[in-house]
Amino acid sequence: MEAAAVRLHGHAVRTPLLRSDALDDATGARIWLKPECLQRTGSFKFRGAYNRLAALDPAQRAAGVVAFSSGNHAQGVARAAQLLGIPAMIVMPHDAPAIKIDATRDYGAEVVLYDRYLEDRSVIAHRHADERGATVVPSFDDPYIVAGQGTAGLEIAEDLAALGETADVVLVCCGGGGLASGIALGSGLPVVTVEPAGYDDVARSLAAGTILPVVDPGPTVCDALQTLVMVPLTFDILRDLGTTGVSVSDAAAMRAVAFAFRHLKLVLEPGGAVALAAALEGVVDLRGRSAVVLLSGGNVDAATFARCLAA
Amino acid sequence: MEAAAVRLHGHAVRTPLLRSDALDDATGARIWLKPECLQRTGSFKFRGAYNRLAALDPAQRAAGVVAFSSGNHAQGVARAAQLLGIPAMIVMPHDAPAIKIDATRDYGAEVVLYDRYLEDRSVIAHRHADERGATVVPSFDDPYIVAGQGTAGLEIAEDLAALGETADVVLVCCGGGGLASGIALGSGLPVVTVEPAGYDDVARSLAAGTILPVVDPGPTVCDALQTLVMVPLTFDILRDLGTTGVSVSDAAAMRAVAFAFRHLKLVLEPGGAVALAAALEGVVDLRGRSAVVLLSGGNVDAATFARCLAA
Repeated sequence: MEAAAVRLHGHAVRTPLLRSDALDDATGARIWLKPECLQRTGSFKFRGAYNRLAALDPAQRAAGVVAFSSGNHAQGVARAAQLLGIPAMIVMPHDAPAIKIDATRDYGAEVVLYDRYLEDRSVIAHRHADERGATVVPSFDDPYIVAGQGTAGLEIAEDLAALGETADVVLVCCGGGGLASGIALGSGLPVVTVEPAGYDDVARSLAAGTILPVVDPGPTVCDALQTLVMVPLTFDILRDLGTTGVSVSDAAAMRAVAFAFRHLKLVLEPGGAVALAAALEGVVDLRGRSAVVLLSGGNVDAATFARCLAA
Repeated sequence: MEAAAVRLHGHAVRTPLLRSDALDDATGARIWLKPECLQRTGSFKFRGAYNRLAALDPAQRAAGVVAFSSGNHAQGVARAAQLLGIPAMIVMPHDAPAIKIDATRDYGAEVVLYDRYLEDRSVIAHRHADERGATVVPSFDDPYIVAGQGTAGLEIAEDLAALGETADVVLVCCGGGGLASGIALGSGLPVVTVEPAGYDDVARSLAAGTILPVVDPGPTVCDALQTLVMVPLTFDILRDLGTTGVSVSDAAAMRAVAFAFRHLKLVLEPGGAVALAAALEGVVDLRGRSAVVLLSGGNVDAATFARCLAA
């Protein structure tokens, strides 16, 4: 992970730890916020993507990369590839937020849309990769990706130490567990994963001690966190470190987006606000404790954002 | 100003310097953002207010403070007073944004509303202050206020030095010139003030070499910057340091709010986005140059914010 930090130095934003009176008042806790919405491409995903791509050898770089993603990993890979001069193709669901598809194209990637209800994005991505000898860049099932996301955890540990502080727990927005694994390793602090209701495969897998998928969970406004099953890489890390998980409703995530607008002056997407929601709604009881809350992304359409503010 | 920095240490947020690929691309410049929307109370005003109140003696503290403000100074004074245990009365226009009036009350201040078209807020404030022997806390005509705002300038200079960087110019959102004066003194860098069109008394005064008011400028969406005339304190500082000024339209400020939503993931109020607007619209030509842009506040109602995103 130190190697990842060296690779990302000067390329990823070293996001600050922020404090909020309103949040401390609302939770009865002492909370630091890690706003990865301020990261390049608007989410933490740039960290892992850049770390993965920067480690490719010249032949691999020339052959290009292929990724599949609903949008934040897409932007992270596209921007990292642009910075490193690597051709990138991104396979995205046709109903991904327009802001994410547009930004991915703006970063110079070739975008291939697929129907998430009829096609398998993994099959599409691997077919395209095989055709051109390109490298598939997974969104979480890769040690380089986990290490890259983990640099945010290293920064948390360093910044708390510089303040002479510590934290009892880190609340992390969670899809496949790449960020949570990295934060758990990098920060050395206990992690609680937060998923959207219905997509709580990580929480249930960790509770059961074995990987469990979720089945037909239905739609969620947290488009960034629609992962149905984790992988041994992230499961093993989180299980070994004693991580537990919770989930929050879409309504709670949207209220957290509104709270961040009003009190934090930060733009969060619903999926980037679930950890904040867990704190605000008492899903994780933080009273009298100190905590770090990951704000993992802010790539949200104006219409969805307006719905959150009205909620 | 170093005394102000000591007073504010541990109380004000040390806001970071942020970078944005999209902003550099849009301007052809190398830009650092100083996001004072992340400051306590959502604007830089907390700095000056806390510095002024913390310097009051015990008798003055017991007698309380009175301020008049359309909202950001109001919140800064109210919150500083709350932290220091000082009674605060704030005189606010009846048509100030609801989010600002509500927050000022939430910080424990007594709010007195007045009709900005029929009454003189200064007269009202001084009458209330005289009745109770309270101290009037001006929004910019006070050396403690200027020094407090200037701590943001000290931070800019320190953070640029730590990065081994410098900047050719600092663009500062400007009402009465308190922040601009402080930044010019604290950063040691050339400052360009940015005002809303029609409220460009600072730009015109600096160009003319004498204080000039604006008359009947009409409404503006930049409620934080509706100052009609500056004072010798701020005029003398800015004139002596060779500051110049520009102005931007309401439409440009609203487009900058939308840019900040989409690309910076920061919530700005229109008045807090005018310096960004001047950069984005080329009102100050930054091509090939390096600059710091102050983002001075983010206290905006959801309805106004939605109007900006639709603009």
